[in-house]
Amino acid sequence: MEAPVEFAGGMKVPSCSLEEILNPKSIAVIGATPAGRIGHSFVTALLELGFKGKIYAVNPSYSEVDGLRCYSSLTEIQESVDYAICAVPTRIVPTIVDDCSQKGVKAIHIYTGRFGETGRREESELEQEVLRLARKRGIRLIGPNCMGLYCPRQGIGWSDKFPTEPGTVGMASQSSYIAHDFILMAVPRGIRFSKVIGFGNALDLNECDYLDYLARDTETKIILMYIEGVKDGRRFLRTLRQVTATKPVIIIKGGRGKAGAKAAASHTASLAGSITTWKAALAQAGAISADSIEELIDLAVSFHFLPPIRGYRVGVLGTGGGPSVLAADECEEAGLDVIPMPNEIREELRGKGVPVWDWIGNPVDLTIAGGAFGPGDLLQMMGKSESFDLLVAITGEPHYKRQQQRLTADAYVERYRNDDPKRKPLLVVVPDKSLDVNSYEEPSARLFSEIRTKLVAAGIPFYPTVGRAARAARKLVDYYQKNN
Amino acid sequence: MEAPVEFAGGMKVPSCSLEEILNPKSIAVIGATPAGRIGHSFVTALLELGFKGKIYAVNPSYSEVDGLRCYSSLTEIQESVDYAICAVPTRIVPTIVDDCSQKGVKAIHIYTGRFGETGRREESELEQEVLRLARKRGIRLIGPNCMGLYCPRQGIGWSDKFPTEPGTVGMASQSSYIAHDFILMAVPRGIRFSKVIGFGNALDLNECDYLDYLARDTETKIILMYIEGVKDGRRFLRTLRQVTATKPVIIIKGGRGKAGAKAAASHTASLAGSITTWKAALAQAGAISADSIEELIDLAVSFHFLPPIRGYRVGVLGTGGGPSVLAADECEEAGLDVIPMPNEIREELRGKGVPVWDWIGNPVDLTIAGGAFGPGDLLQMMGKSESFDLLVAITGEPHYKRQQQRLTADAYVERYRNDDPKRKPLLVVVPDKSLDVNSYEEPSARLFSEIRTKLVAAGIPFYPTVGRAARAARKLVDYYQKNN
Repeated sequence: MEAPVEFAGGMKVPSCSLEEILNPKSIAVIGATPAGRIGHSFVTALLELGFKGKIYAVNPSYSEVDGLRCYSSLTEIQESVDYAICAVPTRIVPTIVDDCSQKGVKAIHIYTGRFGETGRREESELEQEVLRLARKRGIRLIGPNCMGLYCPRQGIGWSDKFPTEPGTVGMASQSSYIAHDFILMAVPRGIRFSKVIGFGNALDLNECDYLDYLARDTETKIILMYIEGVKDGRRFLRTLRQVTATKPVIIIKGGRGKAGAKAAASHTASLAGSITTWKAALAQAGAISADSIEELIDLAVSFHFLPPIRGYRVGVLGTGGGPSVLAADECEEAGLDVIPMPNEIREELRGKGVPVWDWIGNPVDLTIAGGAFGPGDLLQMMGKSESFDLLVAITGEPHYKRQQQRLTADAYVERYRNDDPKRKPLLVVVPDKSLDVNSYEEPSARLFSEIRTKLVAAGIPFYPTVGRAARAARKLVDYYQKNN
Repeated sequence: MEAPVEFAGGMKVPSCSLEEILNPKSIAVIGATPAGRIGHSFVTALLELGFKGKIYAVNPSYSEVDGLRCYSSLTEIQESVDYAICAVPTRIVPTIVDDCSQKGVKAIHIYTGRFGETGRREESELEQEVLRLARKRGIRLIGPNCMGLYCPRQGIGWSDKFPTEPGTVGMASQSSYIAHDFILMAVPRGIRFSKVIGFGNALDLNECDYLDYLARDTETKIILMYIEGVKDGRRFLRTLRQVTATKPVIIIKGGRGKAGAKAAASHTASLAGSITTWKAALAQAGAISADSIEELIDLAVSFHFLPPIRGYRVGVLGTGGGPSVLAADECEEAGLDVIPMPNEIREELRGKGVPVWDWIGNPVDLTIAGGAFGPGDLLQMMGKSESFDLLVAITGEPHYKRQQQRLTADAYVERYRNDDPKRKPLLVVVPDKSLDVNSYEEPSARLFSEIRTKLVAAGIPFYPTVGRAARAARKLVDYYQKNN
C-alpha cells in the first residue's frame, strides 16, 4: 500500500492510507445534479452533515447545485481536491480517473455501477481498465457500485437522514443498501457510528483494508461487516484473529446458499465460497456470526450497551404464566441457563411477608404477585444476586394493560443501571407492536415509543422478543468467555 | 362424556356436550364487580360483544353492576342459568359448584386460580374436591385458572377489545394470557376467530375435548393450540391424526426445556414430557409445530390467506442488491428452492426491450431495472410462470424511500389476487418499523399501517421479514405435500 507508484506527471508518490482518505480536506462530487437525483443526494448530505472542508460540485450540464457553483470539469477547479465522488455513467468513469489524476486526487469513491456485476464481458473489461488506470496514477478506489463513506465526525456521508453525532460502531458493508438501512434501524436503538463504508465491488480497496483500518481506528470499539465474498481469505483471517481479541467483530455473510451466492455474483461480482468453511474459519478467528440484519442489530446493541457477561445463568421476569413458560423455553433454546429461583431471594420475599414466596420461580410469573411486590422490587433483588450472570426483564405482552407496561418499564429504568458494577447486566424486552393495520393513531404506539426512548437514555438495551434478546446474550457471553 | 351421572336432586342426566356449553342461553357471572376488577371485565365483555341471551351478575356485596341487577347468590335467580363464570376466591369455589348444581347449570368456567399450580398440598386437594363435586353433579368445568371462552358468533368473550365479527380460526390455549395476546396480535393481520378457549389447569375438560370439538366444528377451518402438558397422550394423538388430514392443526408447546417445564408446572400444574418424543409424535400425527408466538401467527396467517401450495420453488422480488442476496439465503435456509430466473421471463423482458434482461436473476434486484419495468410488471410475469410454486414480494427495506414503498405495495395489490387460480400464491414482506424511539408521529408508521391495511383487504398475507415469510411458507407446503 505504501509502494511508490507512477504519478500522472511522471512524479513518484505513495498512494495514500485509509486514514488520509477518510479525512479529506476537500471533496468534489462529479456528476452533481439538482434535486431528485443521486448526484444531488451526495451534495446535500455533505452540506447537512456539516463537512468542514470545501465541497465542489462538478457537472458540465449545470452552473449551480444547491447554492454551490457547479464546475464543468474537475480540472476547472483552482484549489486542490483530495477526494472525489464519481456519479457519472459507466463508460465515462475512465475519463474521470484521468481528470482526478491531473488534479492530484488521492481517492475516488466510484458510486457508478454496471461493471463486473452485470456478468457481461465488456463491462468487466471496463472495470479492469479503471483499476489499471487508478493503480498507474496512484489513486485509491472505493467501490465501484456503492455509496462510499459515512463518517459523522468528518461530516461525510451519503444521506442527510444520518445522525451528525458520532459513535463507536464501525461498519464495512459490501452492500450499501444494507448499510443504509442498518444505520437507520440501529439509530433508534441507541447506536451511533464512527465510520461506515459501503464498498460494493471492492475493485481496489477491499474488505481486508477496511477491517484493518477499523481495527486500528481508536474511535471504533465494535466492528460490523456485511460481506459477500473475500478477495484474500488468508489476509482477512489473519487480520481478524488479531483484532477479535480486543474488539468484537460481528459479520453477516451474504450468499450463504446456492441462490444467494448467485445473487451475490450478480450484485457485487463476488465469489461467495462455501459457507461451512467460512463459518468455521470465522469462529476460529474469534469473529461473531449473524444470520440476519435483525440479529446484526441485536448484537451491535448488546455489545454497545452491556458490560462483559461472564456466564450463562439468566434470571427472567416481567410477564404472566404462559409467556413465562415460553420465555424459559426460548432462553434455554438460545443456550442460556434458566436456573431455579435462588433460595436467598425466596427467603428475602418470605421475610417481607410475601405470601407466594415459595411459589415464585424463574422466570417470575408476575401475575401471581397479587400486589405483594412489583417488578422493580424483584429486579433489584435478582440484580444483586450472585446466582445470576444476567437478567432479562420484559415490560409485558404487546397488548397487555398499557398503563401497567408503562409502570413496569419505569420501574426498570428508575431502579436499575447497567453501569453499576454491583448489578447484573440487564436486557429489556419491549414487545413488538409493529404489525398493526389502521393503527397509526393508536396510543400504544406512542407508549412503546416512549418506553424505548427511556430505556436507551438509561443505557439499557431493548429487544422485541425474549428469543432475540436471549440469542444475542448467548453470543455475547460466548465472546467474553473467549476474550477476557 | 355421555354417561348418565347423578344430578343434584337425585335425577340422572347426561352431562352436556361442548357444543351445548359453547351455546348457552344464559350466563351468570359469579363474583361480578364494579369497574376496574376482573369480575367487571366479564360482564362488560358479554355486553359489548353482544351476547344475545340473559346475563346475570352475582355478588352479595353489590346491588348493581354495569346497569344489571346484581343478585346476592345464584339461587336467588328465578330463571334457568346454563353457564356460570366463577370469579370468586379459591376457597369459596366448592360452594359455588353446589349453588350451580342447585340451579341446573351445565358448565362452569372457573376463572379462579391458586389451585394445583401453586405446588401446595392444600390447594391441590381443594382442586380435586372441586372436580369430585362437579363430576358428582354432572357439571362440566372449563379451567380453573383461565379466561374461558371467546365465541364471537355467540357474543361471548372475556375482553371487550376482541372483535365482534366471527372468523374461521379456532384456538385452544392452556394459557389465556397467550390466547389474549394472540387474538389482539392476529386481528390486525387479518385473522378472525370461530372459538377460542383459554383452558388453564384442564381439571375436567381438557385439550383432547377441545381439539375434538374444534375438529368437528364446521365454523372452524384452522386449529391452533398452545399446550403445556397433555392429560391423555394416546387419545390426543388419535384425535390429531383424524383431524389433520382435513384441517391444519398448528401447535405451540410450552415447557420444551427443563426450566420451561418447571415453569409450566407452576403455571398450570402440567407435566411437560420430553420435547423430542412430543415433536416426533406431533409430526407423525400430521400436526404443524410452532416454536414461538410470532411463528404461530405467521402460520395462522399463511393457512388463512393462501391456497394450497404444491411445491417449494420460490420467486423473490422487490428489493435491492444486498437485501436480495440475504433474501435468497433466508429462503434457502427455510427449505425453499430459489430457482434461477426462468428463461421465458428473461425472453419476455428482452422482447419488451429491457436492456438488463440477461442480468435479471431470482431474487430480482429491482435497483438494476433503471425504470425499464416496475415491480408490478415483474410480479405479473412471475405470477403466471409455471416454473414457480409461490412468490415472495417485498415492499422495500424499512427505511427505503417512502413513496417508493407505497407505489410498490400499490402495484402488488392492484396487479394481484391470491384467489386467482392462474396466479401463483403470493406472500408480501412489509418490513418492520416497530423498534423506533421518539417516532410515534413519524409519517412512515402511518404509511406502513396503510400498506398493511390494503394488503389484508386484498387477501394477501404480510410478514415482517423474508425469513419469517419463508419459514411459514415452507411449513405450509410440507402440510399440503402430505394432505392433498
